[in-house]
Amino acid sequence: MRGAVLYAPGDVRVEDRADPTIIEPTDAIIKVAAACVCGSDLWPYRGIQPVTEPSPMGHEYVGVVEEVGSAVRTLAPGQFVVGSFFASDNTCEICRAGYQSRCVHAVPVGAIGTQAQYARIPLADGTLVATPATPEPDLIPSLLAASDVLGTGWFAAVAAEAAPGKTVAVVGDGAVGLLGVLAAKQLGAERIVIFSRHADRQKLAIDFGATDVIAERGDAGVAHLKELTGGLGAHSVIEAVGTQESMMQAIGATRPGGHVGYVGVTHGVQLPGMELFFSGVHLHGGPAPVRRFLPELIDLVWKREIDPGKVFDLTLPLEQAAEGYAAMDERRAIKTLLTL
Amino acid sequence: MRGAVLYAPGDVRVEDRADPTIIEPTDAIIKVAAACVCGSDLWPYRGIQPVTEPSPMGHEYVGVVEEVGSAVRTLAPGQFVVGSFFASDNTCEICRAGYQSRCVHAVPVGAIGTQAQYARIPLADGTLVATPATPEPDLIPSLLAASDVLGTGWFAAVAAEAAPGKTVAVVGDGAVGLLGVLAAKQLGAERIVIFSRHADRQKLAIDFGATDVIAERGDAGVAHLKELTGGLGAHSVIEAVGTQESMMQAIGATRPGGHVGYVGVTHGVQLPGMELFFSGVHLHGGPAPVRRFLPELIDLVWKREIDPGKVFDLTLPLEQAAEGYAAMDERRAIKTLLTL
Repeated sequence: MRGAVLYAPGDVRVEDRADPTIIEPTDAIIKVAAACVCGSDLWPYRGIQPVTEPSPMGHEYVGVVEEVGSAVRTLAPGQFVVGSFFASDNTCEICRAGYQSRCVHAVPVGAIGTQAQYARIPLADGTLVATPATPEPDLIPSLLAASDVLGTGWFAAVAAEAAPGKTVAVVGDGAVGLLGVLAAKQLGAERIVIFSRHADRQKLAIDFGATDVIAERGDAGVAHLKELTGGLGAHSVIEAVGTQESMMQAIGATRPGGHVGYVGVTHGVQLPGMELFFSGVHLHGGPAPVRRFLPELIDLVWKREIDPGKVFDLTLPLEQAAEGYAAMDERRAIKTLLTL
Repeated sequence: MRGAVLYAPGDVRVEDRADPTIIEPTDAIIKVAAACVCGSDLWPYRGIQPVTEPSPMGHEYVGVVEEVGSAVRTLAPGQFVVGSFFASDNTCEICRAGYQSRCVHAVPVGAIGTQAQYARIPLADGTLVATPATPEPDLIPSLLAASDVLGTGWFAAVAAEAAPGKTVAVVGDGAVGLLGVLAAKQLGAERIVIFSRHADRQKLAIDFGATDVIAERGDAGVAHLKELTGGLGAHSVIEAVGTQESMMQAIGATRPGGHVGYVGVTHGVQLPGMELFFSGVHLHGGPAPVRRFLPELIDLVWKREIDPGKVFDLTLPLEQAAEGYAAMDERRAIKTLLTL
């Protein structure tokens, strides 16, 4: 089969890879219908995260079940499925508490690489959620979004306790931040403020439900937000970047007793204890337990109540994955969908 | 009047200070019935927090209202009151959300100094809670505990979401940690693990409801806790120290999706973003909004359902405050009560 492999920073190649096969009886093989490039794929692409060997890429996917292992009970070949970027058994105590991304048997799908024609998904019963039927083609981008970027934005909004009557601020206008806006809107937030200085992203944020846009960053951004909130800060802040500046901006933008939901994969962040202590905020985040939300998100997409697929502003065939990465890296695209 | 003043690390003196007077119409003057030495008083006493000028000491207090300003509506001279270490209006949006220690008009009582015969308490209506009547003398230590050390341990347990069916671990066997045990017990926790290597503190923790004691610290302590919890860690962890090691121990001891309530005043702590991200814990803490809990805590003490005053294992007259500090510094005492 064909699949994307990262050889070195800036060097993504689509090449022949071995077809996946069932290894564990709980595995399923899926024929990938669509995959995409994640903001977190840019960390190694940019060399910020070291690339020590050629690495299959991709952890977001929708597709059709091709084959199942002997222990798979709930899935059958031919079903269209959406999965999360962590395979999980969905039965352990951590999964049952809603933290499937930290399942005691969790397997990172990123190590398998779903920017490819086929993928082996471990723990298929616990990981994959079938759609009610084969989707109309125009639903595929939104179902694909549920696999990570929507699920992650949704988790951030839940972690930030977005809810009716609340002001939610969103740090980061990438795909996750934008879908954090959509999630906050769905969760009933009264006011949604996006920090963004890019006209196209501002527009999409407003489409998704943002009520205010702040162009400033850092302390100036926090000061502007406080002006909008009677000096207090937001009740809920979604952090979807993962840098020192964005984390401190998120904490600073939150009122005492408020909630920060952070999902930007942190790189080089050190949170100063004293500042955190006196902020009085709640801090929760990490790798989103997307599996927790998949049934609900698939349902919303299926009923066409949300259209998260709008974050894909570049669609390319898998063979042109390299251009898909470059466009995101150079901010020419918010998010690239790869067709197969 | 007489009051304790810190001149330099290790140098606490009881000397004549000016009698406080009403400054703002919302002030009250109280005749202090009992005060005490806080673990946080030891930071400047030990020179870890700089002492730049002679500083009146103390922020925990119970006493009798002596005089009220013209705007005070709910209190009258002669009432016995308990207050928090942050004066708060208890009416602003932050107070109404339960974060009175971050009231938009908050005044730190520590700057006033309650290790003294009298104290001016700002924002008296919002800060002081009257007891149902003049308390029996044996209730005074427990009412005094409510002013900070119990209120802080209670907040930590609430922030850690201690509840029925949960395992709660407590990092720190000082007075706050011990009362965190008491709080977790009251909140219905199923299992309460104290990290402690001091026999007297272990005993008190067990009196307050601890079910298990772990003597190891750091990674070894975390490993031992995981053994007790099926490899997962505690649902809820109370952090009541404030050092890098104790914070990392608390985070490490918490299962993914669990809750850390941290109330040790952090000194020199830098939380590594990556480790925090992948821990998947909820983190909440800071200066405890004791005022939120005072009515409930006073009620529990009044009905003799809890006896938090047992943390005072040394009682001295105010004039011997220096010995009270030294005994805590040298760990000869858990907590010193000062009589007036």
